[in-house]
Amino acid sequence: MGSSSLPDRTELKQFYRRRGFGRQLGFGDSPAIVVIDFIRAFTDPSYDVGSDFHEEVAATSRLLQCARPINIDVIFTTTAYHEGEREARFFHDKVPALRDLRLGSPAVEVDPRLSPLPTETLLVKKFASAFFGTALHSQLAAGRIDTLLITGCTTSGCVRATAVDALQYGFRPIVIRDSVGDRAEAPHEANLFDIESKYGDVVGLDEALSYLRNLAKRSRVASGVPAS
Amino acid sequence: MGSSSLPDRTELKQFYRRRGFGRQLGFGDSPAIVVIDFIRAFTDPSYDVGSDFHEEVAATSRLLQCARPINIDVIFTTTAYHEGEREARFFHDKVPALRDLRLGSPAVEVDPRLSPLPTETLLVKKFASAFFGTALHSQLAAGRIDTLLITGCTTSGCVRATAVDALQYGFRPIVIRDSVGDRAEAPHEANLFDIESKYGDVVGLDEALSYLRNLAKRSRVASGVPAS
Amino acid sequence: MGSSSLPDRTELKQFYRRRGFGRQLGFGDSPAIVVIDFIRAFTDPSYDVGSDFHEEVAATSRLLQCARPINIDVIFTTTAYHEGEREARFFHDKVPALRDLRLGSPAVEVDPRLSPLPTETLLVKKFASAFFGTALHSQLAAGRIDTLLITGCTTSGCVRATAVDALQYGFRPIVIRDSVGDRAEAPHEANLFDIESKYGDVVGLDEALSYLRNLAKRSRVASGVPAS
Amino acid sequence: MGSSSLPDRTELKQFYRRRGFGRQLGFGDSPAIVVIDFIRAFTDPSYDVGSDFHEEVAATSRLLQCARPINIDVIFTTTAYHEGEREARFFHDKVPALRDLRLGSPAVEVDPRLSPLPTETLLVKKFASAFFGTALHSQLAAGRIDTLLITGCTTSGCVRATAVDALQYGFRPIVIRDSVGDRAEAPHEANLFDIESKYGDVVGLDEALSYLRNLAKRSRVASGVPAS
Repeated sequence: MGSSSLPDRTELKQFYRRRGFGRQLGFGDSPAIVVIDFIRAFTDPSYDVGSDFHEEVAATSRLLQCARPINIDVIFTTTAYHEGEREARFFHDKVPALRDLRLGSPAVEVDPRLSPLPTETLLVKKFASAFFGTALHSQLAAGRIDTLLITGCTTSGCVRATAVDALQYGFRPIVIRDSVGDRAEAPHEANLFDIESKYGDVVGLDEALSYLRNLAKRSRVASGVPAS
Repeated sequence: MGSSSLPDRTELKQFYRRRGFGRQLGFGDSPAIVVIDFIRAFTDPSYDVGSDFHEEVAATSRLLQCARPINIDVIFTTTAYHEGEREARFFHDKVPALRDLRLGSPAVEVDPRLSPLPTETLLVKKFASAFFGTALHSQLAAGRIDTLLITGCTTSGCVRATAVDALQYGFRPIVIRDSVGDRAEAPHEANLFDIESKYGDVVGLDEALSYLRNLAKRSRVASGVPAS
Repeated sequence: MGSSSLPDRTELKQFYRRRGFGRQLGFGDSPAIVVIDFIRAFTDPSYDVGSDFHEEVAATSRLLQCARPINIDVIFTTTAYHEGEREARFFHDKVPALRDLRLGSPAVEVDPRLSPLPTETLLVKKFASAFFGTALHSQLAAGRIDTLLITGCTTSGCVRATAVDALQYGFRPIVIRDSVGDRAEAPHEANLFDIESKYGDVVGLDEALSYLRNLAKRSRVASGVPAS
Repeated sequence: MGSSSLPDRTELKQFYRRRGFGRQLGFGDSPAIVVIDFIRAFTDPSYDVGSDFHEEVAATSRLLQCARPINIDVIFTTTAYHEGEREARFFHDKVPALRDLRLGSPAVEVDPRLSPLPTETLLVKKFASAFFGTALHSQLAAGRIDTLLITGCTTSGCVRATAVDALQYGFRPIVIRDSVGDRAEAPHEANLFDIESKYGDVVGLDEALSYLRNLAKRSRVASGVPAS
């Protein structure tokens, strides 16, 4: 087996669609945003596990600017560990670079360009999925959220794992293509393809912004406030 | 971005390793085997969602023949739903083909070539991961299993999701390359690459068989039975 | 320590309230009903683990009669095991009577007086909580349920565990006093007290029926159908 | 129904045993200790939700002194929330006193009499069970723990919920009677009774200390170190 079949991803998409895969889920009525692991260790290229994600961080920033005034839940995640390596033993064995992500260190702080607010939840996770070992699903269910807008890094790691779990836990996963990044292009594209085929929608930033603006308009109409 | 970078997966692998990814986990002392969704609907090409996995099923069969006499836990999964579509709403919206997987129908029976025993657990799952919405992790923990040998289909779907969760839940995921299959080569390879880089080991059938034979030998030695 | 302080449960309630416990949650907008383990083995006194719950089953039946016409989700649970006892090892060690609950046997069928419909979910659980090892939370979240009406048995076992989990997973737990039963009075009352103090509301059947009737009226008004 | 039947808890115990409940699980080979919510807000009576648990804290301290030199995993939990109350909405509605448990405040620090070490895991939980929304089960599975020694507060709240979950997740729950406390005697006793009947063992501190000392002796023998 090889990569020879990859150039024809369009063909593969058609093959999937004929078999009943890859329908559009669409946006729901009540979204939340999760910003996955946009922490210094991953967004600052001077760290071993870091990359240059300045475009993806900027796109996420634009999304947050649109979401915060209309009171959309924003949830940040970080990956961080106590000393002693008992919390995620096999993950650390597989990816020794994770051992540097110490709780309390600057490496695990959310990228300051995103300026998290004190009322925004910060989930400390230990593994790939933002749902694993956290109460994210509980917060979403209690808030009657039906749509999870997913941003962050990396597409082939924590973003993919979170998209799969969002679907499993009962929410519409919508990955914002411009706001998710990876260390390499091939896994980035391959994982967006899998997500779109089987787990969630993949949309551009503009589409997500339009959706949020329409939600805001609708809620102003519902509450009798004239649109500006 | 495109698939142009994929031919150099070797290069990408080296890039990852330099950054502290993709170390070998190795086999543990106490394995279980999970056979994911090798059910008629997926292994019989006459079904819409079916493919020809006769080689992968045969490889899985050889693994089971080696494992059963030495009392290794074998767990089968199927994906099956009640009428009414309330159990996995967004998954069904995304992949309408799943609606045909009715509880009690032949489509959701384990492929008879694998002849599951009445003492082997059959998990009925609703989503991709064999861990989601099942007590698999509980059974593994109570059995003090440390290694999960993963077979089944599809590599880019339930196998990947199960490998990620196995790591998250605290077990060594070992995917047996010859025993996992996909509808298309590109996603198969791309997902094995991701798994090997970040979540588990990917080994050949022969390596898995040697491991099981050594376990058997060790346990005979420990119990004073001469090796045959 | 002894049971001497129990007669003054009213006093204890006041003590708790002064400390900020035991507020009323209230009903939400979108309920589902879970019927926990009203299976032959538990509701037929001729089984070792059975009791006479005919009043509680009748009260549950009245609830279902009110809920079904207005399309409220009804979820049944049963507790059932494969041969071989690998699924719930320590639970079986603790409560050997559970070993008789074999998958496929009449013992684990839902009490026929409740006549489950084919479109109503039947969850096969292995432990106490209806949420553990099942996709119940996912179904509730995807259905945007905010309130879980809890009936079944036993109050000090699966009902309590499910009420605690309902709160944890992000739903309002409402236990219907007349529809939950136990093998003995003291644990029944002690657990309703704990639930009311810390996890959910405990209401009478009449209150639950009024709530459902009001929901039905509201939805008729909303859809322009005149109330009968 | 009333408390009249409670004085005869011994009778109830016999009734349960005849029906196949309440067998002893026994200690396993590989324990961990969880210290649940012994944080200032709960162990300092000057807090609204605080009680005087100096005896239970002292008993826990003795347990830790015995466990640390032989390298037993110790896991602390605290309950703590971000501003904004989105993380545990219905729990806060039910028990408004919880709102004072702010992340970063002295109220949510582990009682200094227990002096947690930097290598000991501190789980920040949002609900009752130490397993809910945390990776505790993963850490225990990866460490091949089979026995969870449970201390902390309160018996009728987080201790009970954690004991139920420990069993569900595949571990032997052993509650140490002298090391768990409650705000009131009746719920304390009623919950120890339920735990002993259905979920785990309840043992005295001396029994737990003997068990740990025997483990230490065995491991010294195994490694050839003469007993002191």
